[in-house]
Amino acid sequence: MSDITPLDKVGEFGLIRRIQQTVTLRQPSTILGIGDDAAILAPQPGQDMVVSTDLLIEGVHFDLTFCPLKHVGYKAVAVNVSDVAAMNGVPTQIVVGLAVGARFSVEAIEELYEGMRVACENYHVDLVGGDTTASRGGLTISITVLGQVPQGQAVRRSGAKPNDLLCVTGDLGGAFLGLQVLEREKAAWTADPELQPELEKYPYVLQRQLRPEARMDVVHELRDLGVVPTSMIDISDGLASEVLHICQQSGTGARVFTENLPAANPTLEVANEFNLDPIMCMLNGGEDYELLFTVPLTDHDKIKNHPDITIIGHITEKADGVNLVTKAGQAVPLQAQGWQHF
Amino acid sequence: MSDITPLDKVGEFGLIRRIQQTVTLRQPSTILGIGDDAAILAPQPGQDMVVSTDLLIEGVHFDLTFCPLKHVGYKAVAVNVSDVAAMNGVPTQIVVGLAVGARFSVEAIEELYEGMRVACENYHVDLVGGDTTASRGGLTISITVLGQVPQGQAVRRSGAKPNDLLCVTGDLGGAFLGLQVLEREKAAWTADPELQPELEKYPYVLQRQLRPEARMDVVHELRDLGVVPTSMIDISDGLASEVLHICQQSGTGARVFTENLPAANPTLEVANEFNLDPIMCMLNGGEDYELLFTVPLTDHDKIKNHPDITIIGHITEKADGVNLVTKAGQAVPLQAQGWQHF
Repeated sequence: MSDITPLDKVGEFGLIRRIQQTVTLRQPSTILGIGDDAAILAPQPGQDMVVSTDLLIEGVHFDLTFCPLKHVGYKAVAVNVSDVAAMNGVPTQIVVGLAVGARFSVEAIEELYEGMRVACENYHVDLVGGDTTASRGGLTISITVLGQVPQGQAVRRSGAKPNDLLCVTGDLGGAFLGLQVLEREKAAWTADPELQPELEKYPYVLQRQLRPEARMDVVHELRDLGVVPTSMIDISDGLASEVLHICQQSGTGARVFTENLPAANPTLEVANEFNLDPIMCMLNGGEDYELLFTVPLTDHDKIKNHPDITIIGHITEKADGVNLVTKAGQAVPLQAQGWQHF
Repeated sequence: MSDITPLDKVGEFGLIRRIQQTVTLRQPSTILGIGDDAAILAPQPGQDMVVSTDLLIEGVHFDLTFCPLKHVGYKAVAVNVSDVAAMNGVPTQIVVGLAVGARFSVEAIEELYEGMRVACENYHVDLVGGDTTASRGGLTISITVLGQVPQGQAVRRSGAKPNDLLCVTGDLGGAFLGLQVLEREKAAWTADPELQPELEKYPYVLQRQLRPEARMDVVHELRDLGVVPTSMIDISDGLASEVLHICQQSGTGARVFTENLPAANPTLEVANEFNLDPIMCMLNGGEDYELLFTVPLTDHDKIKNHPDITIIGHITEKADGVNLVTKAGQAVPLQAQGWQHF
């Protein structure tokens, strides 16, 4: 960055004014955005509302050594939008809480907001408010997202029924392997700062880690197909953990077929290079922000040819347990080894 | 505390389950609370919605040396509710983001939530969701509050008109002086840990600092009186700063009479003990979470006898500037010396 302006030079209100100037409001439900004690919204008739919040902490959820602030901003919005997608909703507004250590410049914070601005544009979301404050440590980003969903059509985790098909969008494991690449390069660079990190070889898995997308496209496509999932969740902690959530909250079991798990070729190549089992990466990697959902067997024809949806198994009675079925046909209980925050 | 359970013993999901069990849902607009990707709400017909977010950071907004976690939880909710009050709204739901350092026990976090639970009960707010994560440092609390207000009746900062009366609720300066007491006692205790802090002498100002209340009572009373403020803001940064916000956003000036500023007797006594000018404490102290609002002159009779409302001045043309009028009748430009976060 060419300019470095200390935060205390513009102050909290100055920073808010600078951010306010970059914000465009698009949603008909937004009456008043940034600049008052609260934003004012006009909920749309016939719509329920969904609300979710996520914290991203420097050193826990992102590492500024290898993650550009613009990507951090984009990802912070995308992972929140992903929660709305997982309810079958469409995002409408976000509010942003930001705690910033003294080492950050105005330009750095503007770069972070630029990432959020691009994400808001892509997902048609209005940034309507926030709170910006000093922190004693690193950067903390707190985003709360609001979305809307036609009355009664929000999809919970708890609606899966035996014989429903278990589906995932996109492919899995990429975000986790992207993180492995970044951590290896960081370790190498820490040992020898003269080294140039080798990142150009891994565009796919790095993009999956640094700049994930919420699957709003699939939410809209399912609506167009007339498919309402019986249950849905987004894959943040890892597929295994999310399958267990759906089964626990629906009171069911499930069978997941390892053969059906979708991985992209670059993901398989990196797994091979790191000597990691690609199945484990897909099951427990986390942070893919794909959707895991169930549909009635009768919807099979509607989704079977969808290029971005893979049927990975089916729901069973609870007594059958939650099982992973290997290529050889052996069933083993599915276990979650996803992110442990504590 | 008698029990100390490390957080990693129950894990994130275990903690969420424990918290979920303490939550009561009261609002007719809450369809689904904690436990899914997002909460589901049914906005009430004829109501607009307001949304606001606040971050509270350990070491910046609160000091656990002298602030019990239960009070921190209560205050975190109250300051958010105060933002809804400042829009003339009634709070309905909150979501809570929590970043917790490894030194906190499960019992400590439950104490924090107990404070939030009591505040939710007092303000009739539903806790409908959240995110709990590890932090590398101290405790960070992020709360987003939703509220409702009859369509078109949200009160902004920008509606003040010349000749409107400028009013505040309650009294000012107490929270700031409470902080002075706490910091003096902390310094004494740090110098000599054998010392018992002398806090019993200062119940009023300590309560103002540690456990402020949002003035929802006044919001309801103004409705009962048929008074709709032309502008409103809550006093978080200090009266002077908030008067300037209203004037700037309304395009007006104002005259504030020092003689009219309301202070409680215990506040004046502590100011005297600390050799601080009570007027400066009232103007710039901050954190009182009282409401500052304007009403048309024609509403004078409706509010003049209200025990919790004081008329401190009036709005003028912009060209007249924003002035403080001393007891001797001298007008000096009002300046904000409120909290600087950076």
